[in-house]
Amino acid sequence: MDRLTIVKVGGKVVEDAASLNHLLDLFVRISGNKMLIHGGGTTATEIAARLGIETEMVNGRRITGKDMLDVATMVYGGLINKRVVAALQAKACNAIGLTGADLNLIEARKRPVQDIDYGFVGDVTDVNSSELRLLIGENVVPVVAPLTHDGNGQLLNTNADTIAAELASKLADYYHVYLFYCFEKKGVLKNPDDENSVIHELGREDFQNYVASGVINTGMIPKLENGFRAKRSGVKEVLITNPENMINGRGTRLTE
Amino acid sequence: MDRLTIVKVGGKVVEDAASLNHLLDLFVRISGNKMLIHGGGTTATEIAARLGIETEMVNGRRITGKDMLDVATMVYGGLINKRVVAALQAKACNAIGLTGADLNLIEARKRPVQDIDYGFVGDVTDVNSSELRLLIGENVVPVVAPLTHDGNGQLLNTNADTIAAELASKLADYYHVYLFYCFEKKGVLKNPDDENSVIHELGREDFQNYVASGVINTGMIPKLENGFRAKRSGVKEVLITNPENMINGRGTRLTE
Repeated sequence: MDRLTIVKVGGKVVEDAASLNHLLDLFVRISGNKMLIHGGGTTATEIAARLGIETEMVNGRRITGKDMLDVATMVYGGLINKRVVAALQAKACNAIGLTGADLNLIEARKRPVQDIDYGFVGDVTDVNSSELRLLIGENVVPVVAPLTHDGNGQLLNTNADTIAAELASKLADYYHVYLFYCFEKKGVLKNPDDENSVIHELGREDFQNYVASGVINTGMIPKLENGFRAKRSGVKEVLITNPENMINGRGTRLTE
Repeated sequence: MDRLTIVKVGGKVVEDAASLNHLLDLFVRISGNKMLIHGGGTTATEIAARLGIETEMVNGRRITGKDMLDVATMVYGGLINKRVVAALQAKACNAIGLTGADLNLIEARKRPVQDIDYGFVGDVTDVNSSELRLLIGENVVPVVAPLTHDGNGQLLNTNADTIAAELASKLADYYHVYLFYCFEKKGVLKNPDDENSVIHELGREDFQNYVASGVINTGMIPKLENGFRAKRSGVKEVLITNPENMINGRGTRLTE
């Protein structure tokens, strides 16, 4: 099987022009098949505010009303996705921007309302990768925005970490998949105030202990849960890292 | 050669939810390879206004400053493109949304400033269709937004009628191309107040006479110039029509 590197980038890394450019310079150096999944929440919040749409978050997840879904579609599927694609083309990397609706890549169902009504948020139900693999075989580099669809014409907002894990898991049937969660820090930190306290190897049991003791908290918990799920589904390597260390394979490596 | 039908839709047809749905019901009935190019100017103007960005038009063309380019990228590349793609997927049509940056499909150069500075508006310089044709061969239906790029990372706003003509002209080397310009009216009208005064066949000389006498004016002139250029480049048929008549092959047919 061929190697496929899936890089998920979020936060400042993708929303600040200079750091995005730096990331993409490093990204294009990755040899073999590769793919990028991006977020864009800060820009979405900013554009929503300018349009007079209030952002409501619950447990770090965005409540996506009809208007907020339009903002997500514009910002994730349009503004950020196409900027990344154009920037990669300028670096001689033949990128294509996709959402889960394109090529029916990622089907999802609207999250059922239990305690919280998340609105137009999608839980992934299926990944259809045949045309995607055809493109990858032609050295095309997919750039995926965190949007899915329900197959009945409804777009849905889906967390980018989850999309990266779902794609990695499904594509592990066809490639040796390396999944890199790339953000501002060098990895998962034992001490949030010490950039050099990176946990180099993290197993599921240690993870649960760190969560119980509060060392690992908030947004890092679902990210790591996604990572462990991908690992269990046959993804070769899951690494939490920053752009610089991504290239050197350093950061927090998840173990079984 | 296989047949390829390229449908360009603009105006209310694509921006009103009910008429878009009606158009897509008709579009999916077109047999053989097909492709959709869409506009979205009214929504762009509306979103721009809500963001406090003023819309300036010269000769029916949008002046595209940096902020307006972001709006175009959000609205054309995101909101409208992905709505169309999700709606087509719901109709069992395997659509993929593209801009000119994706797959390096349409390269352009920023229009040189002469009398008017149009801003980030692109004049098409090249169409690269190899991956596009691969997708079409897999029964994928491309949905193209009116955005191009300059190859140096700059997205550009390009008129959708022009994009349709450029794609049709280049693809005429590989397919029998049928190009339908689809809008609210039944075709080019001899009398703007009479919906039934459709000019059924229009040659270049007649066109020039109609322009001279004022029968054909404003936005219809560049649309027809694009159509005649496509016809000269080997496109089998160029038809100006509305959604209903598109299916029946009725409207204004351009002749040499």
